[in-house]
Amino acid sequence: MMKDVQSEKDQRRVALKYVGVDEIRWPLQLRDKQRGVQHTVAKVRLAVDLPQDTRGTHMSRFVECLQELEYLELGQEERVLDLLKEHLQAESAMMRLEFPYFLQKAAPVSGKVAPMDIDCVFTAEKRDKFSLKVRADIPIQTLCPCSKEISERGAHNQRAVARMEVLAGEMVWLEELAEMADRAASSPVYSLLKRPDEKFVTEHAYDNPRFVEDAVRELALMLDRDRRIKAYRVRVESIESIHNHNAFAVVERDWQ
Amino acid sequence: MMKDVQSEKDQRRVALKYVGVDEIRWPLQLRDKQRGVQHTVAKVRLAVDLPQDTRGTHMSRFVECLQELEYLELGQEERVLDLLKEHLQAESAMMRLEFPYFLQKAAPVSGKVAPMDIDCVFTAEKRDKFSLKVRADIPIQTLCPCSKEISERGAHNQRAVARMEVLAGEMVWLEELAEMADRAASSPVYSLLKRPDEKFVTEHAYDNPRFVEDAVRELALMLDRDRRIKAYRVRVESIESIHNHNAFAVVERDWQ
Amino acid sequence: MMKDVQSEKDQRRVALKYVGVDEIRWPLQLRDKQRGVQHTVAKVRLAVDLPQDTRGTHMSRFVECLQELEYLELGQEERVLDLLKEHLQAESAMMRLEFPYFLQKAAPVSGKVAPMDIDCVFTAEKRDKFSLKVRADIPIQTLCPCSKEISERGAHNQRAVARMEVLAGEMVWLEELAEMADRAASSPVYSLLKRPDEKFVTEHAYDNPRFVEDAVRELALMLDRDRRIKAYRVRVESIESIHNHNAFAVVERDWQ
Amino acid sequence: MMKDVQSEKDQRRVALKYVGVDEIRWPLQLRDKQRGVQHTVAKVRLAVDLPQDTRGTHMSRFVECLQELEYLELGQEERVLDLLKEHLQAESAMMRLEFPYFLQKAAPVSGKVAPMDIDCVFTAEKRDKFSLKVRADIPIQTLCPCSKEISERGAHNQRAVARMEVLAGEMVWLEELAEMADRAASSPVYSLLKRPDEKFVTEHAYDNPRFVEDAVRELALMLDRDRRIKAYRVRVESIESIHNHNAFAVVERDWQ
Repeated sequence: MMKDVQSEKDQRRVALKYVGVDEIRWPLQLRDKQRGVQHTVAKVRLAVDLPQDTRGTHMSRFVECLQELEYLELGQEERVLDLLKEHLQAESAMMRLEFPYFLQKAAPVSGKVAPMDIDCVFTAEKRDKFSLKVRADIPIQTLCPCSKEISERGAHNQRAVARMEVLAGEMVWLEELAEMADRAASSPVYSLLKRPDEKFVTEHAYDNPRFVEDAVRELALMLDRDRRIKAYRVRVESIESIHNHNAFAVVERDWQ
Repeated sequence: MMKDVQSEKDQRRVALKYVGVDEIRWPLQLRDKQRGVQHTVAKVRLAVDLPQDTRGTHMSRFVECLQELEYLELGQEERVLDLLKEHLQAESAMMRLEFPYFLQKAAPVSGKVAPMDIDCVFTAEKRDKFSLKVRADIPIQTLCPCSKEISERGAHNQRAVARMEVLAGEMVWLEELAEMADRAASSPVYSLLKRPDEKFVTEHAYDNPRFVEDAVRELALMLDRDRRIKAYRVRVESIESIHNHNAFAVVERDWQ
Repeated sequence: MMKDVQSEKDQRRVALKYVGVDEIRWPLQLRDKQRGVQHTVAKVRLAVDLPQDTRGTHMSRFVECLQELEYLELGQEERVLDLLKEHLQAESAMMRLEFPYFLQKAAPVSGKVAPMDIDCVFTAEKRDKFSLKVRADIPIQTLCPCSKEISERGAHNQRAVARMEVLAGEMVWLEELAEMADRAASSPVYSLLKRPDEKFVTEHAYDNPRFVEDAVRELALMLDRDRRIKAYRVRVESIESIHNHNAFAVVERDWQ
Repeated sequence: MMKDVQSEKDQRRVALKYVGVDEIRWPLQLRDKQRGVQHTVAKVRLAVDLPQDTRGTHMSRFVECLQELEYLELGQEERVLDLLKEHLQAESAMMRLEFPYFLQKAAPVSGKVAPMDIDCVFTAEKRDKFSLKVRADIPIQTLCPCSKEISERGAHNQRAVARMEVLAGEMVWLEELAEMADRAASSPVYSLLKRPDEKFVTEHAYDNPRFVEDAVRELALMLDRDRRIKAYRVRVESIESIHNHNAFAVVERDWQ
């Protein structure tokens, strides 16, 4: 029989916070507010803690836990963590899923619908209590209030990313976070715009100039009003159209 | 004495186009049109061909060739290729250098100067004849002519990248390529703009709307007029401020 | 009625090779040799040519063409190109899809099956004739023949990537390309290995030392024997475990 | 005179943690333990806090602060933060520098010296007290103890990255962090190895098998013994040569 090197006693008396696998990709299925089921692909990190007297973890069991589920699905985070704790005989477990998610977005005038991708990260941890942090990167448009004010015509604008990170007591849809970001922006962005839509978006952005500072403050106010949100961190970063660098602002409440 | 496995005879009768090292970073020094010497860091690829009857190349010699130079310097490309051919007993050699380069750019009204980075790639090859391809990614601003025309106020604009690839018969400064891209744009971009500059840039872009199609055509005309340029490929890609995807256009002449 | 700026006459007499959209992500469905249907997410580039007398293309139509299909599916490439040519009134069209694909791979001793991801790029073009280039990045293991030969024990080995690009006259499954890469390697790599598998893989790699030069030559021989393959380019790059840089080799036949 | 929109009163009563610029590249000069001065290029983030009653910050002043220094230099972090606080009238300031750094590393047998790059991040913050966190990504080799134990010959090994993050009370050289990582590894990695070196490295790694768990524990012990280190986080991640995913372990002390 083969020796189990990982199970050797370790004398160094150093407990490890995390041991596990990273950068593993796996098909992911999730519920979609608008259409039922959505298929995507996640980059996955799985880890457990390691007590000070054990030399190593059994890395193959992480992948076996993924295999045991018929498919990886959002909403099952706690079940995965319980599986990891059980199969790896650990006190605590964590899972991080990074994946693109598609919103179905309707253009503002023509109403034409097309999918638009956002980048999401779900980070779940469980020792005794289960916690889930959700991060969504929502692309938006910002139009500079200063540029508009001081110029006789036009105003510089650009794509920006609203990175919303929340710890919630109850289910919050990704669509809800995206709608907040859209309201905080000079304008939402879309995958499909016909000319009447482009006219609307251009004028709407011009009529709603927003610094990154404005956008994060609007988001803070919205998140403060939402009883489900226990803690948050919001970062808006503009891909400045007049510079080769970005502008950003961050606001957070009870975030760690 | 240790066996030289690489020098074994190979019976498979397959000659290789390239064998070498990649993703090696090395300090790089180069001449700067405005200030003399500039220090940067390059990601380097070095390769030679391998005849069908030899099993392998000697990878450590590539790094020894880099070491033999006091420092890696732009303008020495042919000397490096000759060193590689000699030390690795090869018929042909190639070197690819990818590095950030700093232009010194003055703001249009205040005249304040600050460095702005561009990404560059130099690809040199030599069998009998030496050739050098230069690629520079110049950040610019594009303002949409359609959005301006159809909207009562404002116009969407965004950062774009003009990727210019040229094969030249004589020395072409990176600063010259950057100036062409700036002229083809709705506006150049800068690292440091005070309010009078921002007003100028905003209005200048509004007065010079350019599709990506316009920008590549302007660049084609400029490159066609430059006798030093033997072949080119130009690609302008706009980070659309109204979409979460980009628009691009490509034009090329005698490019391969 | 709104003015159609894009349809203006252009006087610059510069025809464009490509105009279109890039970095757009879209759900992708494809046939899977082992299990029927597989869902993934693609980064998409779509373009057409633009004649010298037209100012611009209609960017929104690219997205409308994607929307017109019920879903984006591999095998439909020519149909998408025909749609693009028709809707954008173009002479030629191209589509590039970049996506992760999952192989179902069984461990060599335990037989345990788990998905392993490979990165793929499909590039389709059509003017009069349709062509499709397939690129697959297959992770493999390489064990250094020189290190094994000169050392009394052990041999350095590492993960490597076999980038296979082929132009085929008939359908070639991604699974077939992956199997070729596995045969050219010191050992295949897997997502799930139990201890007897790990023993097998370790000894198998030690018994089959391969330089990157060996691996590309083995692949060239296999592709030369396959009548479906009209042209190819193969590049194997080892993430050297004894260096902070990589070693690579390239072989190609009739590739452009 | 132009209106100063940024200085408007803000009624939303939301103070911001950070506002500033990001992704700006700038030449960086630093002291090198072995050779005096080293030139590199940094990606820079600069930020200050923003009180609840001010609408926006003045983004151009961040770049002016960079310009005011003759050049950006390691060791000047606190001076830059003081400049930012003064010019932007802020209570707190932060700077993040991300850059490649070159160690001069001698091969173990031949003694041949060549530069090897490591990725570094310096994060400095100051409200009342100045703090500096240093992160260095040191490439190392790990050889699997389990694979060695269960196999009759060979053992899988791979490049790994030791990410060391420390908060120090006194100066710690990057070279010192790199030496710790090398001692915790199965073997250091090098840019230039001749055959006797390769033999040495291969056998040395085979004689010193290390899980990622072993490597982080060795590093924890070294950092615990170093009186200058007040807090740390260490993460070792192996680019597994038998998988297409990575293994990792994390240990930290007083880190936040």
